[in-house]
Amino acid sequence: MLHVNEADVKRLLPFPKAIDLVREAYVRLAQGEAANPPRVLLSVPGGASMFFMPGHVYGQGSVAVKVARVNAGNPRVSLPTVLLTIYAYDATTGVQVAEVEGEWLTAARTAASTAVATDILASKSVRVLGVFGTGMEATTHVPMLMLVRDFDRILVYSRNKGKRELFAEKMSRDLGITVVTSDSPERVARESDVIVTATTSNTPVFDGSLVKAGSHVNAIGSATPEAREVDTKFAKRSRVVVDSIAQALATYGDIIGPIREGAIRESEILELGEILNGKMKVVHRASDVTLFKSGGLAVLDAMITDYVLGKLVPQERAKGARA
Amino acid sequence: MLHVNEADVKRLLPFPKAIDLVREAYVRLAQGEAANPPRVLLSVPGGASMFFMPGHVYGQGSVAVKVARVNAGNPRVSLPTVLLTIYAYDATTGVQVAEVEGEWLTAARTAASTAVATDILASKSVRVLGVFGTGMEATTHVPMLMLVRDFDRILVYSRNKGKRELFAEKMSRDLGITVVTSDSPERVARESDVIVTATTSNTPVFDGSLVKAGSHVNAIGSATPEAREVDTKFAKRSRVVVDSIAQALATYGDIIGPIREGAIRESEILELGEILNGKMKVVHRASDVTLFKSGGLAVLDAMITDYVLGKLVPQERAKGARA
Repeated sequence: MLHVNEADVKRLLPFPKAIDLVREAYVRLAQGEAANPPRVLLSVPGGASMFFMPGHVYGQGSVAVKVARVNAGNPRVSLPTVLLTIYAYDATTGVQVAEVEGEWLTAARTAASTAVATDILASKSVRVLGVFGTGMEATTHVPMLMLVRDFDRILVYSRNKGKRELFAEKMSRDLGITVVTSDSPERVARESDVIVTATTSNTPVFDGSLVKAGSHVNAIGSATPEAREVDTKFAKRSRVVVDSIAQALATYGDIIGPIREGAIRESEILELGEILNGKMKVVHRASDVTLFKSGGLAVLDAMITDYVLGKLVPQERAKGARA
Repeated sequence: MLHVNEADVKRLLPFPKAIDLVREAYVRLAQGEAANPPRVLLSVPGGASMFFMPGHVYGQGSVAVKVARVNAGNPRVSLPTVLLTIYAYDATTGVQVAEVEGEWLTAARTAASTAVATDILASKSVRVLGVFGTGMEATTHVPMLMLVRDFDRILVYSRNKGKRELFAEKMSRDLGITVVTSDSPERVARESDVIVTATTSNTPVFDGSLVKAGSHVNAIGSATPEAREVDTKFAKRSRVVVDSIAQALATYGDIIGPIREGAIRESEILELGEILNGKMKVVHRASDVTLFKSGGLAVLDAMITDYVLGKLVPQERAKGARA
């Protein structure tokens, strides 16, 4: 059995490839050519919450299940808030073929998903990218989004001044782009053409009435029933697109909230895969704003895991041949 | 992280202990003190079917998820039809603490569950145990059931003559009890006071009208919507008890079939945990027959995994201290 660590995944998964794989996974799922059963949640009273997320793209050699464990108190014992492990099995026999460290893979597939959505939903002439959050998701989103649009400038907001300054310094150095920190979420909301919220917030991170006409917002952080990253005002103004309608209605506070408040209707929500495969259409007017809300689909993890394993297995075989 | 193999589980899990643990797991679940979310099924077209089964007993140190992979064609490539792995995580932090080989543990917990059901449902004066099947489940069921009732004789039927003779020889040698093979399922159905069907059959393995008044049947093999081990005639004659009403209605052909045919009513089905904790009562008349149908609950795996890990961790610590 292969043990695939974060460094392996980073090395084997170029960002443009991640975007292609994620786009294909969405299309295959929308065409009924993949399995993405509802994720299962198990919450330990006073302990971790765990998600079990199996997925498979028909015809691929492996089935993957991601097991996510979340405890906001973990940093107090020097552990990450979220622990992610992906187990892969031979699709025919069921033999376990790999255990994959899932943090980087998840951040990359989430950013790739946002890039796919932004590519299809945002105007071609966007110039300013606004980022809320400075964690691993934010870090992967900036270079991934630069692959689908030419930004002049990145605006970053985080409540923690030190973190947003470090993030800006690292991003501008690594990516050769102007990154400006902002001490107000309002400024980021007002000045950005594309926004990413990559936070663990339970309450909206900006005032939705401030966002410019024609802008596109990706809300990809908190995705539990009680959590909100965007407010109802913004959802009401937007064309709303999600990664999975079923999952959104079951678990995303940013969708459930506005529906409950009567601001949006279930029937108006679009699914990214259905847009990509041409079954649903987004009509753009210059005054429209768009919202892409995602909580992450197991089938994206399965698609990328299968790709990474495909790259590793020949290398492992070659090692064996040399040994 | 601990790797726990079949030999470790056998060594650390005495059968009487397995019965106590399983009884406790049923009671805790019935009292709302355990999590047993619906198992998830993912079927690969032309490949394996996989079940993802997370479970947790509140207050225990670990959460377990069992991943079952099933492909009836596996023996053609010298692999078992069913592959079972249990992953265990720290209930507070979510850190993975163990990977456990699940075949023996599953067979033992299933047999322990049958023993708990038989102890509460079968007459005290039973003498003959009838067994359909000769696999690992049948092998664990005989000694486990001998812990709750004094049998004079075991009757075993399997379509394969060689297998049933080997089984009889091994059981009588290991357990010091008379084991008789039968070349007809009818004889086993007619002569047994307690019956276990531990098969992969898709069609009923005996004629339900042959079973004696006062007998008890445990159907613990096939548990998919289209599979049957017992016929509708028998279900109609029986007081029907299941391990989980929700799971039975969703996935057990032996329950779904008779309901669809109008032979039993959903409202008449009893749940083992509710009987054990006194919320439901089984009224016995000498002429009654009883049926216990189980497909296996994740919470039983979680309960036993937690126990096995508790036995291993001090040993691992002691090894560390000596090293």
